[in-house]
Amino acid sequence: MVKEKILVTGGAGFVGSHLVEELVCSSYSVTVLDDLSNGSRDNLRSVIDRIKFKLADISRKDWISKIPRAHVVFHLACHPRSFSFANPQKDVCVNLIGSVNVLEYARKHDARIVFSSNSGIYGPCVLAKENDAASCLTPYDVDKYSTELMLGAYNKQYGIKSIIFRFATIYGPRQRVNEKYGWRPVVATFATRLLRSRPVTIFGDGHQTRDLVYVKDVSDALLRSIRYKGDFDIFNLSTGRETKVIDVFRMVSRFVGVKASPRHGPPLPGDIRRMSYSNEKIRRKLGWRPRTSVEEGIRLTVDAMRKEAARVRKWVQDSGALS
Amino acid sequence: MVKEKILVTGGAGFVGSHLVEELVCSSYSVTVLDDLSNGSRDNLRSVIDRIKFKLADISRKDWISKIPRAHVVFHLACHPRSFSFANPQKDVCVNLIGSVNVLEYARKHDARIVFSSNSGIYGPCVLAKENDAASCLTPYDVDKYSTELMLGAYNKQYGIKSIIFRFATIYGPRQRVNEKYGWRPVVATFATRLLRSRPVTIFGDGHQTRDLVYVKDVSDALLRSIRYKGDFDIFNLSTGRETKVIDVFRMVSRFVGVKASPRHGPPLPGDIRRMSYSNEKIRRKLGWRPRTSVEEGIRLTVDAMRKEAARVRKWVQDSGALS
Repeated sequence: MVKEKILVTGGAGFVGSHLVEELVCSSYSVTVLDDLSNGSRDNLRSVIDRIKFKLADISRKDWISKIPRAHVVFHLACHPRSFSFANPQKDVCVNLIGSVNVLEYARKHDARIVFSSNSGIYGPCVLAKENDAASCLTPYDVDKYSTELMLGAYNKQYGIKSIIFRFATIYGPRQRVNEKYGWRPVVATFATRLLRSRPVTIFGDGHQTRDLVYVKDVSDALLRSIRYKGDFDIFNLSTGRETKVIDVFRMVSRFVGVKASPRHGPPLPGDIRRMSYSNEKIRRKLGWRPRTSVEEGIRLTVDAMRKEAARVRKWVQDSGALS
Repeated sequence: MVKEKILVTGGAGFVGSHLVEELVCSSYSVTVLDDLSNGSRDNLRSVIDRIKFKLADISRKDWISKIPRAHVVFHLACHPRSFSFANPQKDVCVNLIGSVNVLEYARKHDARIVFSSNSGIYGPCVLAKENDAASCLTPYDVDKYSTELMLGAYNKQYGIKSIIFRFATIYGPRQRVNEKYGWRPVVATFATRLLRSRPVTIFGDGHQTRDLVYVKDVSDALLRSIRYKGDFDIFNLSTGRETKVIDVFRMVSRFVGVKASPRHGPPLPGDIRRMSYSNEKIRRKLGWRPRTSVEEGIRLTVDAMRKEAARVRKWVQDSGALS
């Protein structure tokens, strides 16, 4: 059987690079499109010789004609949520016009799209289901939801097939903290700071909850979607469980091996008090379930970040020795 | 009492110019922002000495800092629906990024926004209500609905006040047919062609219905919204009645005074079979109701277009005589 050709936008990013590794392991032919604004080639170092890499900005349509046919596009490239009120025009450009470009590419090549949407579009919620109404709090939420609607319009008009995953709060090895982009994912931020013996700030009282899903469970779901035969479908990609931010802090501290207390800052704009999303539909229709407990996932993340820090330290030392 | 300062985006267009006339009559201080891509200065000839005009593209944010404070922004500028699949990126640029620019302007000046949304976002429907689910068929629908969500996000985040009108099918004097933009509004297209003794093509069988609302009734509703004290509200702006396209053709033929039969072409992409929208909410909360019957409105439109054609003919003759 000839394996599908795959295009991964944002493939050098956190989720993208885990997915690309899985795809390469499963012998798919993979092209990565990334502008490296938040991802890095280093994320792909284990597979870089076995993929094609295209440096391009998703929001500029010139890439559409330059990338050969793929059968499936994993569309993961995005401008981060935490920065979206600071530059809402850029958010629309990357997150919606970028998606329109992906749709035009898919139309040209009759490709299917697997899109990374955001469960933040529900607003505050407990066990939200896919048919629940959206309550967008930020330009990012609007642009993610708009992309879902755009995928729907192209499906009705041209029959372009799409699967939409509404990601819960993903965490795991290789997740970046990017202060420049105001991107402070909870597990990675706490681990990065505590591993460097730096103070941790929790915005709000820490009792806000997140539905934390481990990145390897996410790439497992994405991989399964290649074989899914639906025409247009939306799935929450979540554990259905709530974890308090303060409890994340405690687990990270324990695995880092420090006794620390967090500072508290004011709640962030658009921050959501409670988040959890039903995964009944994805269990039923894709046969997927989360395999990694939050405790296990945080342990794996802290271990990986510790190893990565040691690797970087060694690289810096070796470079110094050579110079 | 000092009257509010008003900014009208797309104020040189069809609906915009009728609104600007009403505003000037009611002694408001009016600035029009328009790129004249579809509107024209000629639409504003009766008021041009009593308004400020700014030639600018709504999608480029440089205008935000150049226009002095307004208290209310009527945001009517848009890229037309019928062209949205041909250039979906441009549609997002004008219709969503343009709206984000209006929101950033409103944020800067603490202005209220009155936004012209589109009842096409419901998809095919009979007496749709404001809380009904959206079913977007084109990039234009997505961008209009996304703007509503963006207005909602800015309302929650910054308290920016908005009133959203979901326009039914508006018709009346001064509506343009713009083949370049693929813009063929039903009454104006039929009247333009029949007044020139040209054949008329109906796309589909002509039994598709429209909820036709007369432009003077629309500008009346917009004017009322200045005094409305709501924080964030959505209104259908409609008659709640369905008129078949073939019946529009018959009425236009009668008022033009010709006996003609239409050709039939294939249905257009994203065309909607049945459209009507409940106006119960706008009647109750704004005290508005449509005052012009479809028959009366079509008669007024044909008369105005006949006079306009005579005016243009005379102008051409006079120019010829002078040259």
